[in-house]
Amino acid sequence: MTDTVISSATKEVVIGFDRPFVIIGERINPTGRKLLAGEMKAGDFSRVEADALAQVAAGAHVLDVNAGIPLADEPALLARAVKLVQSLTDVPLSIDSSVLEALESGLEAYQGKALLNSVTGEEDRMERVLPLVKKHGAAVVAICNDDSGISTDINVRFEVAKKIVERAADHGIPACDVVVDPLVMPVGAMADAGVQVMQLIRRLRMELKVNTTCGASNVSFGLPNRHGLNPAFIAMAIGAGMTSAITNPLEATLMQAVRGSDVLMDHDPQCANWIASYREPAAEGARTRRSGRRRRSGKG
Amino acid sequence: MTDTVISSATKEVVIGFDRPFVIIGERINPTGRKLLAGEMKAGDFSRVEADALAQVAAGAHVLDVNAGIPLADEPALLARAVKLVQSLTDVPLSIDSSVLEALESGLEAYQGKALLNSVTGEEDRMERVLPLVKKHGAAVVAICNDDSGISTDINVRFEVAKKIVERAADHGIPACDVVVDPLVMPVGAMADAGVQVMQLIRRLRMELKVNTTCGASNVSFGLPNRHGLNPAFIAMAIGAGMTSAITNPLEATLMQAVRGSDVLMDHDPQCANWIASYREPAAEGARTRRSGRRRRSGKG
Repeated sequence: MTDTVISSATKEVVIGFDRPFVIIGERINPTGRKLLAGEMKAGDFSRVEADALAQVAAGAHVLDVNAGIPLADEPALLARAVKLVQSLTDVPLSIDSSVLEALESGLEAYQGKALLNSVTGEEDRMERVLPLVKKHGAAVVAICNDDSGISTDINVRFEVAKKIVERAADHGIPACDVVVDPLVMPVGAMADAGVQVMQLIRRLRMELKVNTTCGASNVSFGLPNRHGLNPAFIAMAIGAGMTSAITNPLEATLMQAVRGSDVLMDHDPQCANWIASYREPAAEGARTRRSGRRRRSGKG
Repeated sequence: MTDTVISSATKEVVIGFDRPFVIIGERINPTGRKLLAGEMKAGDFSRVEADALAQVAAGAHVLDVNAGIPLADEPALLARAVKLVQSLTDVPLSIDSSVLEALESGLEAYQGKALLNSVTGEEDRMERVLPLVKKHGAAVVAICNDDSGISTDINVRFEVAKKIVERAADHGIPACDVVVDPLVMPVGAMADAGVQVMQLIRRLRMELKVNTTCGASNVSFGLPNRHGLNPAFIAMAIGAGMTSAITNPLEATLMQAVRGSDVLMDHDPQCANWIASYREPAAEGARTRRSGRRRRSGKG
């Protein structure tokens, strides 16, 4: 039963086989958010602050922080964002960049054991990013693509994951500090994308014994009613053994599916979190209802 | 890959490993529906008619029909209900009773290959119900309890399923005509009810190679926000290999989870059913939207 421990200066979060599903809030990312990108570039971090607090309030256990903006000083911006967010909340952070200097800068600014997002199976990436992970005692998200690209064959993707885990071990990073992203394809473009990823999640868990993560909304890209499909995906993926996801915690139906899945997986003792999240207001409101309408108690 | 074929006079429905999930509409059942029970007993079948049509319109592939009312002539009522419903719709029916004479009466009235709901592993039930199933060439729902009761041990429940399948074979009924209900317990009362049933579904599918069904809302009995938990359950169960459920097709979030799960399992070619169910209205509505508000296209 693998546990991946990350922490802030004051709080630990564990991604694990026997643990409640971990939600990594994705919103602090200027990619595709023009408004946020412009503000951050101009030194305005008010939206970063608001998004951090909103995501934690909505139930995020970890926050991803990305400052990838073209023609900007990404290392400086990422360090600033990390310092700001960790001053506002005690949830651990995922330091997110494809630029090595920015990863370095973000990790330097970070207090605690970070999740580094991410390394791939590309030779160059592994040899540059893994030493950084080791140096800072971080955990790392490992994406299942390599120099040959993103394979549509899950056996190839599994082998890439295995390669990264083994290379991480060479660098002194244990498998429990590697969280594998199996790469979820859009099912509208690739009919067996769902079937594939469920099989791959099972293999990664049972054979490689690693925790897993993914972008929870990738699967529905291009389809209508994405908010209706993502919850079904996350429940199925949790049933298949996935242990975390990078997603938007403000999507209420998705969080509901996560909480429900925790209940179904026996990761919510006494259903306490479910009941606290969804019980109807007590006493006064209930009295009002009882004296008014007749309530139907349907079968089943 | 097991297929269970049932039919009306004019339409076939297949419950199968490689098939879209089959929804059996549960509403035509006076148990717990005082109004319906009173009406049926008095000879008023208008609600039966309305519920039949509403469920089919909402997406039910099969309709369960039950006429179990205390102190009423159940065989006569069930035959009447069956005749009425099959005159209104061409979906196959599930003939539902715990009274042998009513099952006989319902099956006599039925045209096509019915699903008989149900037999248990109790000696008496097997020996009385299975010959009826064989006589009418029906398929049968097999519930995993027997003379020793309802076991909380899934291995025991598996053995009961196995016993019923073997006894059915003795009666000349093939395993493809036995749909097993693993018995879903309320997770609020039994913490590992979800974990259990997922494991049992997998075993029934892989080892016994039978199709499965269940009451989809049993799992949430006693908890708040049942409509939020049932969809997570059904998606997880479909991912574990369940192939049908007896449920309320008018529960829109549940049907959405079923449709989404069909997409994820690659049982909705080109996502045609999903797109037809959820695409936004075309042309005129779209023009109005485009000329008005600016739409945000968020990341991922």
